[in-house]
Amino acid sequence: MKIVLDGMGGDNAPGAIVKGAVEAAKLIKHDIYIVGRKEDIEAELKKSKFKGKNIKIVDAREVITMDDSPVKAIRRKTESSMVVGLTMVKDGQGDIFISGGNTGALVVGARMILGRIEGIDRPVLASIYPCLGGEPSLLVDAGASSEAKAQNLLEYGLMGSIYMEKVWGRQQPKVGLVNLGIEESKGTSVTKDAYQQLKAASINFIGNVEAREVPVGACEVIVCDGFVGNVILKLTEGVAWNILKLIKNKLMRNVKNKLAALMLKSDLKSMKQEFDYEEYGGAPILGVNGPVIKIHGSSGVNAVKNAILKGIPYGQENVVEIIRQSMLDLEEIIEKDEEE
Amino acid sequence: MKIVLDGMGGDNAPGAIVKGAVEAAKLIKHDIYIVGRKEDIEAELKKSKFKGKNIKIVDAREVITMDDSPVKAIRRKTESSMVVGLTMVKDGQGDIFISGGNTGALVVGARMILGRIEGIDRPVLASIYPCLGGEPSLLVDAGASSEAKAQNLLEYGLMGSIYMEKVWGRQQPKVGLVNLGIEESKGTSVTKDAYQQLKAASINFIGNVEAREVPVGACEVIVCDGFVGNVILKLTEGVAWNILKLIKNKLMRNVKNKLAALMLKSDLKSMKQEFDYEEYGGAPILGVNGPVIKIHGSSGVNAVKNAILKGIPYGQENVVEIIRQSMLDLEEIIEKDEEE
Repeated sequence: MKIVLDGMGGDNAPGAIVKGAVEAAKLIKHDIYIVGRKEDIEAELKKSKFKGKNIKIVDAREVITMDDSPVKAIRRKTESSMVVGLTMVKDGQGDIFISGGNTGALVVGARMILGRIEGIDRPVLASIYPCLGGEPSLLVDAGASSEAKAQNLLEYGLMGSIYMEKVWGRQQPKVGLVNLGIEESKGTSVTKDAYQQLKAASINFIGNVEAREVPVGACEVIVCDGFVGNVILKLTEGVAWNILKLIKNKLMRNVKNKLAALMLKSDLKSMKQEFDYEEYGGAPILGVNGPVIKIHGSSGVNAVKNAILKGIPYGQENVVEIIRQSMLDLEEIIEKDEEE
Repeated sequence: MKIVLDGMGGDNAPGAIVKGAVEAAKLIKHDIYIVGRKEDIEAELKKSKFKGKNIKIVDAREVITMDDSPVKAIRRKTESSMVVGLTMVKDGQGDIFISGGNTGALVVGARMILGRIEGIDRPVLASIYPCLGGEPSLLVDAGASSEAKAQNLLEYGLMGSIYMEKVWGRQQPKVGLVNLGIEESKGTSVTKDAYQQLKAASINFIGNVEAREVPVGACEVIVCDGFVGNVILKLTEGVAWNILKLIKNKLMRNVKNKLAALMLKSDLKSMKQEFDYEEYGGAPILGVNGPVIKIHGSSGVNAVKNAILKGIPYGQENVVEIIRQSMLDLEEIIEKDEEE
């Protein structure tokens, strides 16, 4: 398997990207292709003193920056690490592309270069959502499009279910629709339609889910539009970090509690880790003709390493092909329904 | 001032309502009118051994239940405590109405019986949002309508600002629009329009606010549609309670930490209190011709007492009149703009 890595994407590129690749390369036999300015990647590789043979460099002279306009950047910077990397996956020279670069450009680039899977109206960025004291869920849409039609929400549920099953090994993952209440009749016209479509699909749809239940893993695939998804991700982070901060402050308030603080330090640290996106291997773009993973712009060595390791099943499990097949099956069902 | 209380609304009615009224009546000189089945209220009042003269009973034979359909209930149950209480405010026999009954019916009843303030397209339920380690904010819309037009979001910002200034004593309260990012260009067509309208209004609009900043009180009036508002309220609750639960469990895990647990017990308890809606005196309905406050269906004695005490400035400060005037001013500005 060939893993393609954007060597120039993110705040810590190429240093952290190369170091993360080296850490992963020591653990796996697959080839890792780092795309970017050859001399920069080589210099970093030399620093790492890596002796293995499974890291290769693909020269790409341009870099898409965080300030670049997505569509323009993909069209004009044809020699950029991002465009070159995505093209490798398109041409079968790579099995998965991983990037910490400009999110908008990566989503647009994936759509333009790899193309949408037949039957999919809108590819989407999904995000791993850290649940409290349990296994993480998948949130779709994580903020790619602020609005969604019922059909888009159906697609998010289908693709998310396939991804969690094939990549995370979940059996019949529970798919839930974020809504105002659990009753079928709740919500907007869009969520009401989406409810009916998700209910009819061949997935384990558990119905509407209230936001209160999301952090405890009530569903493994959290379906919502990108506006709500953005609120869920950022609010969870805001509430969690601030509570931990408050607790720390309360602990430090007086001498009596300083003792308790010391005792609790390791517990709080482990809780912070549960909220650490770096542990989870990045966010998949679903609905395009090839596996693509977005990692945070601020990703460090560990995040890059984890994205590579967690990316392997996404590259190997034919997720794209299974999504394509499920969309064809869905069309057949709809056509049959219409004939009857 | 005459405070009108729905004696039959909520899970703990009439017991907790009467007890809460008694606790409040001991502290204030205003009259409290409890509306409901006379014999039931009298029996509860007798139990409380209250000797004051500022609690009065208004007989109302019907009760609107949680299962009643809002519009039907308001139209048909004309002898219900809710309809009788709202009518008292409409007729000037009461200055504020407080109810823990069916939320939908209360919102519909307020609109139908008191009527919308001239110029207001949509009255709304606002909710006090407990910020972490700081003063609470006001969230508008708290879930009354799942969708909103730009004009509605403008109204929410205006009314919320007036409410926080007059009832909570905030000077030029900071009004923020919940959005995907802080840039003016972010969000849906609705949030983009709302941004421009809020920016032009005579309020302290601080621009877009990301969900991450909401729990730390980045703005004192949080403007969003009811779907997003519902997600913010419920997710905050879900994340906060579950983190506190996790911490408690981690503390209890071993003997070493049991000591720490004892030391921290009071700290955790005080944090829980910060999230306790009972402390904040209920949720105002804004945009109708009279002050109305919704308290939780599960409200206990303390919640009822606080709602009465916090309700006093809402009843006294002419909030309704100020909202009406600000809508007239707004119309003048718009007309002037159009003439130019």
